[in-house]
Amino acid sequence: MTGSGTASYRRLSVTERRAQLITAALGLFAHRAPEDISLDDVAAAAEVSRPLVYRYFPGGKAQLYEAALRSAADDLELCFAEPQTGPLTGRLAAALDRYLAFVDEHDAGFSALLQGGSVAETSRTGAIVDEVRRAAAAQILKHLSVPAPGVRLRMMVRTWITAVEAASLIWLDEEKQPPRQELRDWLVDHFVALLTATAASDPQTARVTRSALAMEPADGPVGDLARRVAPVVAEAAHLM
Amino acid sequence: MTGSGTASYRRLSVTERRAQLITAALGLFAHRAPEDISLDDVAAAAEVSRPLVYRYFPGGKAQLYEAALRSAADDLELCFAEPQTGPLTGRLAAALDRYLAFVDEHDAGFSALLQGGSVAETSRTGAIVDEVRRAAAAQILKHLSVPAPGVRLRMMVRTWITAVEAASLIWLDEEKQPPRQELRDWLVDHFVALLTATAASDPQTARVTRSALAMEPADGPVGDLARRVAPVVAEAAHLM
Repeated sequence: MTGSGTASYRRLSVTERRAQLITAALGLFAHRAPEDISLDDVAAAAEVSRPLVYRYFPGGKAQLYEAALRSAADDLELCFAEPQTGPLTGRLAAALDRYLAFVDEHDAGFSALLQGGSVAETSRTGAIVDEVRRAAAAQILKHLSVPAPGVRLRMMVRTWITAVEAASLIWLDEEKQPPRQELRDWLVDHFVALLTATAASDPQTARVTRSALAMEPADGPVGDLARRVAPVVAEAAHLM
Repeated sequence: MTGSGTASYRRLSVTERRAQLITAALGLFAHRAPEDISLDDVAAAAEVSRPLVYRYFPGGKAQLYEAALRSAADDLELCFAEPQTGPLTGRLAAALDRYLAFVDEHDAGFSALLQGGSVAETSRTGAIVDEVRRAAAAQILKHLSVPAPGVRLRMMVRTWITAVEAASLIWLDEEKQPPRQELRDWLVDHFVALLTATAASDPQTARVTRSALAMEPADGPVGDLARRVAPVVAEAAHLM
């Protein structure tokens, strides 16, 4: 870059420059569909020239999109890292708060990526999305303290993660209704209901559910859910 | 086709020939990834020449794939059409039986289509898949007898449909374990649990749940679920 760069060009290392371009790209890809973004937009957002963007990303937009997605995926995986202390529902709620804040912040890009048929979608972007799902499932299984989870428990956790993703997309589609915290609370209720229903047909899940319920306080989300469900099922006493 | 066709070429009308080629294509796309299938394979399976396939599908493999998917989507939408009589869980189980039989029969093609990153994926194939999801959700809301479903009830139904799809993919991944009927029963339990948990925070869903539970017999799936869940939650009496 000798001789040709401005002062600001020289100030950044290769790693810093890459990071700056990825951040600029991510900011754009978060709020618009990939097909609506050009390399000129990225260059303008990063306040650099188009050739400089190409120097760092010779693969052009596709390569930048993938790098931005990679960076977003790393952030998302961090959402699910939570200390293994306290009631399970509190840990889930904390992870969901971070996840839903991410969804809120990257709304249009999140929809474009996951609703499929995007021009920027490749087998590699698909693999990155899948990796996030697997990392989230692994984190949750860790919180359930099961060293060798069976097929039903794994299926339960993975379907819940898909449900979280689907609910996030619907939430964006519905102009972010219901409010974010209510969505979070419903997703926690969803997890508890699904865990308990799965416990009905799987001894391993039953053990996990028993330990998890034992740690929940009466004034926490599970106690609250139990008290709100009671009047609904009370009329169905014939089923017990 | 005057003069050039064999007897069997002449016997079929245009509509019949198209249908024959689509059936042959669907048979192939059901069990292999689209990238592993050539037009020669389709011609061979239909026992016709490659130029004849091109005459009907000038767009080549992409057009045939889309037509086969369209045909599979029509079949799938029929899975969810079920008379509105009897307990809800019986209707769900019947629809799921048909859906899971379809998944079982079209295993590799189902995975390839829904796992994303397929070379045959386009915005149009994405739209067809989405249409099936929407049709399934509309059918289920009809069974719940809600003329104007609110956001929570719609979200509940749509996330359950996503969960059914995810569970089907996991089931194929796990070499079709647990057995198909057990998977169906778990998906019915999943629906009941999710409906009940959603009833806890949404008055409309609470009304739907009350009517649905009132129609369930004690020796049906909900009674069975309630009796199997009871011992698991019994130890958590501190939560009530």
